[in-house]
Amino acid sequence: MMNTETLPCNVKFMIEGEEEVGSESLEGFLKSNRKKLACDVILISDTGILANDIPSITTGLRGLSYVEVEVTGPNRDLHSGLYGGAVANPINILSKMIASLQDENNRVTIPGFYDDVETLSMEERAEMAKAPFNLEDYKKALEISDVHGEEGYSTMERNSIRPTLDVNGIWGGYTGEGAKTVIASKAFAKISMRLVPGQDPDKITKLFCDHFQNIAPKSVKVKTMPHHGGMPYVSPTNDNGYKAASMAMEQTYGKKPVPVRSGGSIPIVALFEQELKVKSILLGFGLDSDAIHSPNEHYGLFNYFKGIETIPLFYKYYTELKKSNDF
Amino acid sequence: MMNTETLPCNVKFMIEGEEEVGSESLEGFLKSNRKKLACDVILISDTGILANDIPSITTGLRGLSYVEVEVTGPNRDLHSGLYGGAVANPINILSKMIASLQDENNRVTIPGFYDDVETLSMEERAEMAKAPFNLEDYKKALEISDVHGEEGYSTMERNSIRPTLDVNGIWGGYTGEGAKTVIASKAFAKISMRLVPGQDPDKITKLFCDHFQNIAPKSVKVKTMPHHGGMPYVSPTNDNGYKAASMAMEQTYGKKPVPVRSGGSIPIVALFEQELKVKSILLGFGLDSDAIHSPNEHYGLFNYFKGIETIPLFYKYYTELKKSNDF
Repeated sequence: MMNTETLPCNVKFMIEGEEEVGSESLEGFLKSNRKKLACDVILISDTGILANDIPSITTGLRGLSYVEVEVTGPNRDLHSGLYGGAVANPINILSKMIASLQDENNRVTIPGFYDDVETLSMEERAEMAKAPFNLEDYKKALEISDVHGEEGYSTMERNSIRPTLDVNGIWGGYTGEGAKTVIASKAFAKISMRLVPGQDPDKITKLFCDHFQNIAPKSVKVKTMPHHGGMPYVSPTNDNGYKAASMAMEQTYGKKPVPVRSGGSIPIVALFEQELKVKSILLGFGLDSDAIHSPNEHYGLFNYFKGIETIPLFYKYYTELKKSNDF
Repeated sequence: MMNTETLPCNVKFMIEGEEEVGSESLEGFLKSNRKKLACDVILISDTGILANDIPSITTGLRGLSYVEVEVTGPNRDLHSGLYGGAVANPINILSKMIASLQDENNRVTIPGFYDDVETLSMEERAEMAKAPFNLEDYKKALEISDVHGEEGYSTMERNSIRPTLDVNGIWGGYTGEGAKTVIASKAFAKISMRLVPGQDPDKITKLFCDHFQNIAPKSVKVKTMPHHGGMPYVSPTNDNGYKAASMAMEQTYGKKPVPVRSGGSIPIVALFEQELKVKSILLGFGLDSDAIHSPNEHYGLFNYFKGIETIPLFYKYYTELKKSNDF
């Protein structure tokens, strides 16, 4: 390991704990601390690598639009025998509305949804397809017989360069043990869309809410409640930040890292760029199998120590590159 | 009121508290107490009247088939950014499967579902249509802009002589406050079908389960778990039981009661007929607005006292009719 007694450059730390709930306070904090936070490059370690023997650097993130919906049928829960068949059941209606949001090719049907989607060239897609990926291992790890996604795109493309629509939660009616013959008054769902470069979360949220109102039959009332969203992000691979990260990883892993687009969202990255005019380098060390946001989330010691070794080297190479550029 | 110091006939009471959970112990009890329970007619007061000034007697009940379903996608909850778009989301899939169970005319799409449905003649339907019903009042009471049901049938037909399919409960994923970007491993629903004369609950349950497995895409696994069902029921309007009930009501309400088919299910009625070979008279006094199975369920004092007045008269007229028949 390198001698870390002295730092080759100044380092400022910013620690925030609101990321998973929309970082509501962050924008105000950035606006009022622009001077204090001024810097040449931002380093974030909230991403992963392809595998412990395949280092990688994340060069793109998807954005997010997240809307909670409420469908109301009758003004109270009803007996399904006396009313069944005669009134709109909000759970059946919500299911139909959700089903209609994707067509038979698993494309999102919201008018205008794909209008601003950045289209990658066949060359770029061919380059992406070189990243190691084994579909059989992927299916085995998730215990699924088949993958499922937008027609015309590979699994790796579906979860990185293409936007999505997923229901993150649904509830309504009787959910306890046994049988209860009730028609619920209300049904609810949390629906999120991952966005790709070009798509604006506010615009997409509006398109979703308008469309969801439009497709509701007259027999129900619909409410849409947007939660916090986030902008998609792409970072260059030809600047000092990326080069320094690549050199640091190459030294600790013994291999040049692969640039990859991630399907996740880190809303603060777009916010940093907007407020501080600085790009972020996404140099993380986790693995897909860490089960993030799932039960038994974990982080390997190997990855933890690789991070400790790699990050000081990033400081070193970034400083060297910057100095050589300055002359 | 009549003098109730002496009963004109013998009365046996059978009280059971399992009706809302499928009456699991009842069949065995009936089988082993056939002699003790032997009788000429069974009187059940678990139904209602059309209005306090429109007495009615229930002459038909719908049957019930009730199945709980579980759809499993990946083997664990996943991060919707990293996996969204690439794997089957069990909530989206369940929504699509539920949506497909009814077509654009709100007819159930399960193959064979309507095969055994008793078809009423236009004359019978015209007779039914004479029962007082005001669609605007119905919509106003439920605060809905429109009713919703099978094309080609009136609201009163939809909730009595036609079978239905309703989701009674649905759940999956994150249902707490705020936003969580998760793809659930599993999604669940409780789905029930109200059946009409001719339809057999066991057969319909099997048709449902087979169909639900058939429409599942390869990317998910589906489990179906039937709950207790019940046979549909129709009672004659030309026998002593019905006549006695009609005479009793006419005396206490000052009006001849209307025979009506109810959309609800009382599984013990079919069980009584099967085990005791006796028809039941459904002489109830509740109102639609009692909100049964709903919050704030209630029962009017007027209806309570009308029942107390009417039932002894039923005993009286039934005994008189039986005696006159016996001679």
